[in-house]
Amino acid sequence: MTTIALDAMGGDNAPRAEVEGSILAAREFGVRVILVGKQDVLREELARHAHGDLPIEIVHAADVITMKDSPMQAFRKKRNSSAHVAAKLVRDGAADGFVSAGNTGAIMAVAHFILGTLPSVDRPALAAPFPNSKGTVSVMLDVGANVDSKPLHLEQFAVMGEIYYRLLFGTRRPKVALLSIGEEESKGNDLTREVFNRLKKKPLNFVGNVEGRDVFAGVVDVIVCDGFIGNVALKISEGLVEHLVRTLKTALNSTLSAQIGSILSRSAYQGFKKNLDYSEYGGAPLLGVRGITVIGHGRSNVNAIKNAIRVASELAQARLNEKIEAELSPAGVERRIAASR
Amino acid sequence: MTTIALDAMGGDNAPRAEVEGSILAAREFGVRVILVGKQDVLREELARHAHGDLPIEIVHAADVITMKDSPMQAFRKKRNSSAHVAAKLVRDGAADGFVSAGNTGAIMAVAHFILGTLPSVDRPALAAPFPNSKGTVSVMLDVGANVDSKPLHLEQFAVMGEIYYRLLFGTRRPKVALLSIGEEESKGNDLTREVFNRLKKKPLNFVGNVEGRDVFAGVVDVIVCDGFIGNVALKISEGLVEHLVRTLKTALNSTLSAQIGSILSRSAYQGFKKNLDYSEYGGAPLLGVRGITVIGHGRSNVNAIKNAIRVASELAQARLNEKIEAELSPAGVERRIAASR
Repeated sequence: MTTIALDAMGGDNAPRAEVEGSILAAREFGVRVILVGKQDVLREELARHAHGDLPIEIVHAADVITMKDSPMQAFRKKRNSSAHVAAKLVRDGAADGFVSAGNTGAIMAVAHFILGTLPSVDRPALAAPFPNSKGTVSVMLDVGANVDSKPLHLEQFAVMGEIYYRLLFGTRRPKVALLSIGEEESKGNDLTREVFNRLKKKPLNFVGNVEGRDVFAGVVDVIVCDGFIGNVALKISEGLVEHLVRTLKTALNSTLSAQIGSILSRSAYQGFKKNLDYSEYGGAPLLGVRGITVIGHGRSNVNAIKNAIRVASELAQARLNEKIEAELSPAGVERRIAASR
Repeated sequence: MTTIALDAMGGDNAPRAEVEGSILAAREFGVRVILVGKQDVLREELARHAHGDLPIEIVHAADVITMKDSPMQAFRKKRNSSAHVAAKLVRDGAADGFVSAGNTGAIMAVAHFILGTLPSVDRPALAAPFPNSKGTVSVMLDVGANVDSKPLHLEQFAVMGEIYYRLLFGTRRPKVALLSIGEEESKGNDLTREVFNRLKKKPLNFVGNVEGRDVFAGVVDVIVCDGFIGNVALKISEGLVEHLVRTLKTALNSTLSAQIGSILSRSAYQGFKKNLDYSEYGGAPLLGVRGITVIGHGRSNVNAIKNAIRVASELAQARLNEKIEAELSPAGVERRIAASR
């Protein structure tokens, strides 16, 4: 049985969504969950649900990092935050994975500095799920603001993303692509051209460049980019979905006939919204840190928390980090070269 | 009366949309249009419409650049293309502006190399309209693949974008922002931090950084970024809109009740789609070339062509390029410094 340390105070709907999501995860997936946060608050919240003898525990943490906190200040000053304490449970071997729907920047800092990076990884990368028109998920990394990345960093992102995708989605040879501004090798900027050149020599299923337009078409599985681009791509997508949903709602309330129509098609809208719903996809792993870390969207609901716990548990069981290290370590690289001779 | 040279063979719906759009533009805005392309084809198409004594002419061009052509090859080899001939009409003073819905990369190359850049501009920039939740339009530049831009380039993009926005939309002091990954000045990459530092010293209404999420919220008017980022942002937005529309259509056909509902709310969807419709916004100007150039979406319909002609005509009448040159030339910079003392 895997044990997941959950920052129960982090998300916008904390601790309600966190506690209920934990109960569902423990029940459905047989995961042991350690709820980390203010003990009295969590006890009270837990008491509101029938959780019988499910393997759920509480570990106290006095501080809470808010969405308004500056990431580095929160990391330095709130040393007893629920995020710090949860990450330490992983570092000290008391838990197999760390999940939080809190302030993304702060959670990345906490995970990065408390857990450290894997020996062969230079920079951890945040890998975000993008649902696509094929009904599958493409993963983009880095979306976590690793700015001014060097070619080596993107090369490592590609390897980590490929392993993660393989383990979580069971795809034998995920298609790995580089986000650029044209399909040809010559298209892109100095960084992507150098990374293209490196990736085509690696034993990956590297399919070349994809453009922004391809992200939602589901033509590839893993999309590699610098963290500035990835962060802009993720946020512009979130902003556009909000804009479209708002526009559609306004249109559907504009006339009586539209209102009646929208009532009749209610189940269709629910299907539509579910397709866009990040909560099915279980958050974004921070790949490359020494300890499984999954970061949920700030607005994570019960379902999102449950799925983030599931993903962290599956990645721990699949020994994600051992596999990343085996692939990126000097010994691993030599082994691959020997095997390809 | 302004004269616009229209590449009548460029877009996906050429020459039908081009010819009909020209007729509407000539009738509604009093613009003189020179249709450039295969004479026999254009004559036949024009004959299908009542155009009476509207000021529409045909200038023959033997070649056509297709969407599949490589931009630089098309520029070099198809020297008699409708795009080349239309651009030369502007260069030679026979027209006040050049409009095309053809292969964006090729049209940019044609405009850039045939017209040249303004003396004080280092790189032309493509400025794309992004409709937003406030019902206005934000303009992002560069979206035209000026990769590895230097701080000076982005500074010039900001000035050109501001003037363009002011002239086209009549906003007295457009809000100019830098696309980044956080609002604080310290957030971003090496490029954006340097550009932030430069823009805050300029006599612009510079409001700082915006994130991807803010693009569709309509909080700013002009959004400045490197052409790699802008191109990814534009294409990911287009891809996401397609994904959402496809998903919504599928959902609305899933049950009988949903189908009936969708019929009743048809006018609402039309309002929704119109809001997303780039064709209202009249294409993207290529700012900084010596001659007004407006590039429409490849899928431009009649309305899009009509509006692109309108925008080119308005920008020519407003003397866009003289204003850009006055602002960016050494004399212009000195004048501003003197005025601010």
